[in-house]
Amino acid sequence: MARPRRLAILGSTGSLGIQALEICRRFPDRFDVVALGASGARPELLARQAQRFGARWVAVAREQAVEELRSAGVSPPAHVIMAGPDALEQVAALPDLDLVVVLTVGLAGLGPTLAALRAGHPVALANKEVLVAAGELMPVAELVRSGRILPVDSEHSAIWQSLLGESPLQVRRLWLTASGGPFWGWSADQLRQVTPHQALAHPTWRMGPRVTVDSATLVNKGFEVIEARHLFGVGYDAIGVVVHRQSVVHSMVEFADGSVKAQLSLPDMRLPILFALSYPERLAYDGVPPLWGDGAPVALSFQPLRPGEEPRGIALARQAAEHGRTYPAVLAAADEVAVDAFLQGRLPFDRILDVVEDTLQAHDPERGPLTLQAVRAADAWATRTARERCITLTASS
Amino acid sequence: MARPRRLAILGSTGSLGIQALEICRRFPDRFDVVALGASGARPELLARQAQRFGARWVAVAREQAVEELRSAGVSPPAHVIMAGPDALEQVAALPDLDLVVVLTVGLAGLGPTLAALRAGHPVALANKEVLVAAGELMPVAELVRSGRILPVDSEHSAIWQSLLGESPLQVRRLWLTASGGPFWGWSADQLRQVTPHQALAHPTWRMGPRVTVDSATLVNKGFEVIEARHLFGVGYDAIGVVVHRQSVVHSMVEFADGSVKAQLSLPDMRLPILFALSYPERLAYDGVPPLWGDGAPVALSFQPLRPGEEPRGIALARQAAEHGRTYPAVLAAADEVAVDAFLQGRLPFDRILDVVEDTLQAHDPERGPLTLQAVRAADAWATRTARERCITLTASS
Repeated sequence: MARPRRLAILGSTGSLGIQALEICRRFPDRFDVVALGASGARPELLARQAQRFGARWVAVAREQAVEELRSAGVSPPAHVIMAGPDALEQVAALPDLDLVVVLTVGLAGLGPTLAALRAGHPVALANKEVLVAAGELMPVAELVRSGRILPVDSEHSAIWQSLLGESPLQVRRLWLTASGGPFWGWSADQLRQVTPHQALAHPTWRMGPRVTVDSATLVNKGFEVIEARHLFGVGYDAIGVVVHRQSVVHSMVEFADGSVKAQLSLPDMRLPILFALSYPERLAYDGVPPLWGDGAPVALSFQPLRPGEEPRGIALARQAAEHGRTYPAVLAAADEVAVDAFLQGRLPFDRILDVVEDTLQAHDPERGPLTLQAVRAADAWATRTARERCITLTASS
Repeated sequence: MARPRRLAILGSTGSLGIQALEICRRFPDRFDVVALGASGARPELLARQAQRFGARWVAVAREQAVEELRSAGVSPPAHVIMAGPDALEQVAALPDLDLVVVLTVGLAGLGPTLAALRAGHPVALANKEVLVAAGELMPVAELVRSGRILPVDSEHSAIWQSLLGESPLQVRRLWLTASGGPFWGWSADQLRQVTPHQALAHPTWRMGPRVTVDSATLVNKGFEVIEARHLFGVGYDAIGVVVHRQSVVHSMVEFADGSVKAQLSLPDMRLPILFALSYPERLAYDGVPPLWGDGAPVALSFQPLRPGEEPRGIALARQAAEHGRTYPAVLAAADEVAVDAFLQGRLPFDRILDVVEDTLQAHDPERGPLTLQAVRAADAWATRTARERCITLTASS
């Protein structure tokens, strides 16, 4: 058997990171967690992970977390701590890695992703903002085809799996499925009253807070449209959305001949994580109950959305994507700010998309070709602008 | 562009043959119908097809059909007629063919399939009996993997498409979907009264009479279990059946990691035919409306069948398969006789499976390794025995 795949897992203390480590624990002969990276918000958890998996390198963005890591026993000679704003980039570029797993949230994942690719490491990528804000800066579809970017999102994993052995030239449309989130079909009056507690109760998926709220506003599906465009090199007109409440069909590819392929399972992020970690192999895994295992009947519903009838969260994302340039970065940053404000009780749920839209409308993009600097500047500008907008909206409500 | 693929289409006057020629007419630059073969039951249609497609070779099993072909203008120098019991084999072995398309019904397809493979031609295979009765005689799974047998059945095409780019070692289960036919859930009393007219009204598929009745008895799904075993080299225990009334998901593959892949479309045999003819390409085709095209909601239901709870048509096929040797040939031949008797009003619908079961029970297989001769002898024996059984049952009812 081949030696274990040497992994750096960035974002290890988030929901996806915890699930990725669960997979690594299940296959100790296949995966060797040599490096962990995290924001530093949960130093005790990071310390436990580092010890449990014997990670040689431990990177935290928040320098204050170093002391807590040390007092929890993360110290030489077993561990090397890297800290500071560039720590995740440094760990992503370490030599001798086989795969860098980027499960961070926000534009924080961009530097590590670029650093890993520059170092020649394939990247298993779950960080949406990297593709949304900076997808134009990389030949993403080419990197996917050559196995250097491996999608982790359940939707994009489903498309990727459905495209195995197929020619990208013979793709007619991609169909992203959307659970619709907990508030699908709710009235404006109902949405006004939504609490963080309600928004965090996703009907089908176990995910982190940001993506769970984004699922409720459907902005998440808008992000995925932009990601799919970059990952698979298809036009925006060729990406449709189908509301599918049960989250069993994770997405679909319609081919030139009219045939459709889909990937299905019970909704559990461990499956797309496992596929990205083990690709091109599939490892025998029974951690998720088989779809047809217990003989119970299954009913699946599908409601394709007509282009003009998509919810506002998707429509805003498509508009940002059509404007291109730094607009998608502004979309992602403004949404991050608005969701934070909502989760902290500072913004009503139904104002999240107002903040996003207002910030997009206020944006005045730089001229000239898109650069990493322009993306970062737009991110910083949108963060400031959206914060101000949250305060104004809260004061006026 | 490459020159057109030179096709021999056997069974051209049946339902699948007509649909295959519709595909060939749609893509005149891609497919060149150089040879046609048929039983000879519909000589006028065969003559029209030969002229429409400029087929150089026209083969009929029934020698009396030759005169009718000639008088319909099928004659030298444009056409060469081959007639007699070996005519389809001869045409399948012609030089310079790129693909032999075997859409015949019954063991008549076996000789041409073997002849084509011996001549080095790939075979697009829809003839169920060839695999059911004689699948043990060929390294079928190897021929599928090397692109020399191309499945045409919608279910097997779906599995084949879902396996593209995947390793056969990483397959955990195949899930055949079954519409259940027009009488799913009917009582024994209701089934006793079923007329040929009712049995030929399939709820979702447009197919020939034999396979339509076999769908109603579920024997067809039993055949497909046996075919799937040969085509994809998996054990019978790893082939399950899911009742799916809408016939949109055409079948599924469950992989070792628990992930499932499926192929979907509106039910239309032209799609799997097109895929087999154009493989490994997919041609742009709009002859079948896209699944999500009109924005209408779609509801799909699935009922996996537990092994002990499969309907009698499937259970009988599994028993024949477990006994192996010439039992599957007997299954196929007895069913053909019983379905014919039912269609001619000589046997009640609910006695079809009695004839099949009685014939299987009366079978005493030869010892020694399975041979082509033994398969043909079992086919002849089962045909006689089942005919007698039909007469007995009719007399006693």
